Amino acid sequence: MFEKIAFIGIGLIGSSLARLVKRDGLANVTSCYSRTEKTRRKTRELGIVDIVSNSYEEVVEGSDLVMICTPMGTFTEIAQKISPYLKYGAIVSDVGSAKAAAIEAIEPFLPDTTHFVAAHPVAGTEFSGVEAGFPELFEGRWCIITPTNATDKEAVEKIANLWKAAGMMIEFMSPKHHDTVLSLTSHLPHVCAYTAINMVSRMEDVLKQEIIKFSAGSFRDFTRVASSDAVMWRDIFLNNKPATLDTIDRFITALNDFRNLIEIGDGDELERLFSHGKEIRDGIIAAKQHQLETEKIPFST
Amino acid sequence: MFEKIAFIGIGLIGSSLARLVKRDGLANVTSCYSRTEKTRRKTRELGIVDIVSNSYEEVVEGSDLVMICTPMGTFTEIAQKISPYLKYGAIVSDVGSAKAAAIEAIEPFLPDTTHFVAAHPVAGTEFSGVEAGFPELFEGRWCIITPTNATDKEAVEKIANLWKAAGMMIEFMSPKHHDTVLSLTSHLPHVCAYTAINMVSRMEDVLKQEIIKFSAGSFRDFTRVASSDAVMWRDIFLNNKPATLDTIDRFITALNDFRNLIEIGDGDELERLFSHGKEIRDGIIAAKQHQLETEKIPFST
Repeated sequence: MFEKIAFIGIGLIGSSLARLVKRDGLANVTSCYSRTEKTRRKTRELGIVDIVSNSYEEVVEGSDLVMICTPMGTFTEIAQKISPYLKYGAIVSDVGSAKAAAIEAIEPFLPDTTHFVAAHPVAGTEFSGVEAGFPELFEGRWCIITPTNATDKEAVEKIANLWKAAGMMIEFMSPKHHDTVLSLTSHLPHVCAYTAINMVSRMEDVLKQEIIKFSAGSFRDFTRVASSDAVMWRDIFLNNKPATLDTIDRFITALNDFRNLIEIGDGDELERLFSHGKEIRDGIIAAKQHQLETEKIPFST
Repeated sequence: MFEKIAFIGIGLIGSSLARLVKRDGLANVTSCYSRTEKTRRKTRELGIVDIVSNSYEEVVEGSDLVMICTPMGTFTEIAQKISPYLKYGAIVSDVGSAKAAAIEAIEPFLPDTTHFVAAHPVAGTEFSGVEAGFPELFEGRWCIITPTNATDKEAVEKIANLWKAAGMMIEFMSPKHHDTVLSLTSHLPHVCAYTAINMVSRMEDVLKQEIIKFSAGSFRDFTRVASSDAVMWRDIFLNNKPATLDTIDRFITALNDFRNLIEIGDGDELERLFSHGKEIRDGIIAAKQHQLETEKIPFST
């Protein structure tokens, strides 16, 4: 499928894709750039990439695909650093969770002789780092590709085929629309989880210990979500500012409405509101997006 | 352990305990009251209770333990209805998720010749109804018992022993303290989940369908939590009003702080804030309260 794929950054997503590329022979050679000696050593031990280096030149040269798999805050610097070594016609792609900002951070810094395709494989776990990856991570999930008018159609097709080969379903969207949808489906739950955990972490020690001790399942979900990589999420929020702020503002409004229903004791309206839960849930089950969950995980009321 | 246990209400919690009592022979006879013919029929078919009836007299008479397992809004009415049939020295207990309100709703309406013990087995799933129960539901989880000065010590011990036999760990707390802790560990995540789902349900159809289609794992957690029983949760919020309102208010304040960090782009403070996630998570893992989760469930960034 590709001659040489270069991974810039080899965390959960990068290393999962690298494992899959090696397992299924999707490239003749793979390489990866990692900043830290520790990660390079681990990656070599795992044997999931052919060339492991902290030289952009060594990693990038001769690659027909360069996948940027680092936190979004590094995107512009990486685009600048890899540019001198990109071969004619090379495709550069990324896996960032906010697409308008990704395009802005990368595309203007690449040579005109290369093609940038912005994509977001919507998959992950709360674990991070090269050891957390596994090749089945993407199976049955969506990859959202966000081409602009400037994006090369053939390059888009190649990226779509790569993610299809990883088991993903492909959808195309405008970058801005992607950012709106994801601010609701992914960023908002992380906002809630991080905020709740932060609130608890500020409490006096005795109460904090009790909350940990008696944490019900739904709160454990929060701590799982909030144990995701801190740098990655810092960069997602900072790079999807307009959509995230809009979503949080609307959430605070809805939260105040809910609060007021409890205060005035409007049981009928609360019950009506709660009934939407099952309705949306049924939609997700019909869309088969719940399939990777384990059903009937006990959680607590 | 008991001569006859009467279950008032036979939903997820009641039917799980009834199954366990039958399986392990913790009572010579069990009975249950259910309001609807449909539930009585299903319960008879399942064969998990000896006597199934819509007569309080038939269900309660001769019972040394009456377990109230209905939504909290019914508590006072049930206390009044069962009172005439309670035998001398009978223990009445409940499984409600808010304890100050449970005591207030039940205790004053019972005869002085009986003992009330308020308890909260902190266990559950998002499924409800008699068919959703299973006897292992309580294993390894906490049961919080909230005795007052008026509570009979021997009765407390018997209730503690019953929940221990179900595999639960026992903790004692004041009713008010229980309500504060649970408003954080259980009610807050439900507030967030219900609010997010309600926000999405109000959106235009196209966007709503996309959110369902691309729902990332953390959002699916929300829909799972928000598909819990609507009447039960209506009653929990209405019966734990002061603690829930206080928790929501503090959450809105923390959410505004978080929002402002994104707006001003304070990456250092966001990263610092996110680091608490792992810390609290590690505490939960050390407290072995994550044990019933399936690790490495893919969810999405």
